Order: sequence, then structure tokens, then C-alpha cells
Amino acid sequence: MTAETVPSTPAYRRVAGELLQRISNGELAPGSRVPPERELAGRYGISRMTARAAVQLLSQRGLVERRDRSGVFVARPKIAQELATVAGFHDQMLSRGIVPGAQVIHARTLRADEIDSDILTHLGLAEDAQVHAVRRRRTGDAEPLALEESYYPAHLFPGLLEEDLTGSVYGLMRDRYGRDPARSRQEMEPTQLDAEAAAMLGCRPDVPALRVTRAAWDHEDKPIEYARDLYRGDRLVFVTETSENRKPTD
Amino acid sequence: MTAETVPSTPAYRRVAGELLQRISNGELAPGSRVPPERELAGRYGISRMTARAAVQLLSQRGLVERRDRSGVFVARPKIAQELATVAGFHDQMLSRGIVPGAQVIHARTLRADEIDSDILTHLGLAEDAQVHAVRRRRTGDAEPLALEESYYPAHLFPGLLEEDLTGSVYGLMRDRYGRDPARSRQEMEPTQLDAEAAAMLGCRPDVPALRVTRAAWDHEDKPIEYARDLYRGDRLVFVTETSENRKPTD
Repeated sequence: MTAETVPSTPAYRRVAGELLQRISNGELAPGSRVPPERELAGRYGISRMTARAAVQLLSQRGLVERRDRSGVFVARPKIAQELATVAGFHDQMLSRGIVPGAQVIHARTLRADEIDSDILTHLGLAEDAQVHAVRRRRTGDAEPLALEESYYPAHLFPGLLEEDLTGSVYGLMRDRYGRDPARSRQEMEPTQLDAEAAAMLGCRPDVPALRVTRAAWDHEDKPIEYARDLYRGDRLVFVTETSENRKPTD
Repeated sequence: MTAETVPSTPAYRRVAGELLQRISNGELAPGSRVPPERELAGRYGISRMTARAAVQLLSQRGLVERRDRSGVFVARPKIAQELATVAGFHDQMLSRGIVPGAQVIHARTLRADEIDSDILTHLGLAEDAQVHAVRRRRTGDAEPLALEESYYPAHLFPGLLEEDLTGSVYGLMRDRYGRDPARSRQEMEPTQLDAEAAAMLGCRPDVPALRVTRAAWDHEDKPIEYARDLYRGDRLVFVTETSENRKPTD
């Protein structure tokens, strides 16, 4: 393969760059409408197809979002969720100056035969165990951001469901029971929202979502949580930093 | 909030559990068709609406996938990608016994004014720098899994584009230049594929995708890569394990 120097930036990239600059300097503020293709074409002396490609490029990077019929709008900056911490949603929001909230959709204690067998397996529970099942909608500055479905071994957290579950459950686990997550494993998959989830999250069903399946263990390495969460991909970005200690012989 | 015991498992959950068991024991193999709602209704003595809810539940968990008009099929197990390592796609596939591959879509050396200014910023480059831009399609066992768009400072990797880029670029960086990632930062967002990306990945445009933006630094903490990747969410799952050393006073 030969190195090849491309003569000049394609027009759509140049225009995307100019729009990006107008977004960065605040001229096009979050939530404001991006000028329609016709206007961009006139302003930058390009074809409408080139204007569309420029907007498409910004859309692919999540910087603008198309809303059916009403046009294209500048996206709000997404809220970062760190993956390299066992800190929960509540504490992560607080650390970013965002007021966390939660509405309880249901909170029930279930018999083992009332829940999926894979949840029992993940929690390392026998057939005669009981499990707290808590479904919550999590908010940041009152905006719905995630739907959480968590399962906890009932014998380790007696009376948990009588507590106020609109704050940090991890905080309750630590303060009342002396057991909170020391280790967790998360699996992340992009997914589509169904109509019910979209309605609960107050967003359009075509908003891309992230499904996170989480298992957490306490300081004695006992399983204490198994959860399936859905996060709005238009409002959150998941961040992880990794560093590797290099072996001297490598 | 009062703890509440629900009398019995809803029928759709019970049926979803039975289907899950048939998937686990191989009776319903990956790629095979899930019986239509009518048949499930007859077999389990439930309504078609209940059958639909059972299938919907499995679909939400990514265990089955609906294909327009042709029905619902058992999904193949997804390939895990670890986030807690700086190891690249190539090495991660190898470690799972999957043969990695890459097709080069383009490989060019660009002037600073030919690329987006945010890429220059991330790479810590001045206006007179040159950048290698490499776009590749990554495969596992010959199946397209990801589209990668990577940028490397040209002065650190002279001649890189004359190398064979169908294997591990990180391997080349290490072996030929003595610089490979020691630290990386990844941002993950669920996204929709556009028609072009879907065609290149050989999947339907409604397959949910994950956009990963990655910055990597070498052992001297010099920026050596900035990349924007798109991964097929129907074939990959991203895994991270976290543990926290608890402060004694906490």
C-alpha cells in the first residue's frame, strides 16, 4: 500500500467543520435548529446534497439530531458515566453537579419460582430463596435518563423495601447493612427501546439505547445485586480509561 | 413503601422461561426460527398476545431477533470485547479462538488542514503536522464486525502505510516503532447505522450499533492514536470488570 496525499478536503467536511465551529463557539446553541439544507447550500455555495452530507456527518457523531419533519437540532452535551468505578448512578450524577432522582415503578419481594432462573444463578441463590425486585426510573435534573431493574438477595437485606428507594440504594446497602459493591461486572449492548420504555423515558422510540447488565459483589465476594438497566443513548456517554502495566519482557 | 408479594409468575414470563430453556439446551439452536405466536399460543395454552409478550421479553434481552416479515430467530451468542485492556481487536479475537481479519478501505497521509481540527487537538499536533488516516473493516471468522477510522501522527510512524495493515496495527506500532498503547480512553455511545455503514458491515440498517471514540497514549504519554469505530451490536457485547479498593475510613 502506497501513502497517498489527497489534494483537498471534500466540501461537505469543510462545511461540517464550519458548523462544528459555530456549535463550539455557541453561535448554534444546544437545542437550536440547524439551518435547513437549502439555506446551508446558499450560504456556503454548495449543492443541497453536499449540505445534507455535512449535516449527516455531524449526526453520525451525535452532535446534531434529526427530529422527524421538524428538522435537525444541535444536541445537548451528553452526561458522562464512568465505567471504571463501582459508584452508582446517584453518586456519579452528584459528582457532576446534576441532581439525581428516582421514581419507584415497583418494589416487591418475590419467591425464587417467580423470577427468571438466570437471576437466581447470578445471585447464587437456592430454590427456596427470596429476592427483592426493584424497578426504578432514574433522573438527572428531573430528566428521565435510565430504567433500572435490580434484584437483591432478600436474606442479606431484610426490610430494604421499606426504606426510601428514591435515593442511592448502594448507600442504604452500605449504611444499614454494611454490604455494598466492592466489585462489579458490566455487559453493554446497544439496543432499541420498545414503546413502553420510550414512553417511560420520555423520548422517541428511535432514540438509541444502551442495555447494561450488571452483577455486583460485596467485600466478602458475595453476590449482592443483579441488574438490567436501559440508558438513553442521546443523553449519556459511557467512558472508560484503561492503562496496562507493561511486562518488561513484552 | 411496603414489601409486597406477588402471587404468581405472569404467563408471558413463564413461557419466556420455557423458551429460554429450549434455547439453552440447544433444542432451539442459534439461527433457528422461534415458533410463530399462533403455535406458541396453542402449545402453551395462552393467548397470542401473551405469546407476543414472551417473545418480546426475549427480544429485549437480545436472545432472539426479529427479522421483518420472516419471523423471529434465535440470536447467535455475542462475542465479548473487554474494555479493561488496551489490547486491540486483533488480539482480543485471537484470544477467543476467532480468526481476525481486516480490509483496508483507505490509508492516506493527510495534511493537518485536511482533517477535522478536533483530531489534531486530540493528537496534540500543530497546524503543519501530517496524519495517517486509516479506515478498515474488521472481521471475525470472515464476518464483518466493525468499521474503524484511525488517525496516527505521521512523524511518529513514518512508512506505516506501506506496511501490511490487514493485521494488528498495534503490533506494527510496537515491533517497528517501539510505541504502542500504554493507556487509552474510550467513549461509548449507542447509535444507528447509516445505509453505507450497514452495507459495509453486511447487516440491516436497523441493527443497533455502538460508536466507540478512542484515544491512546504510548509509554511516554504521547498521543499516538485517535479513532472512531462502529461496532455491530448484534454480534458484540462489551464487558468491563471493576473493583474498588475501599478506603478503611469509608
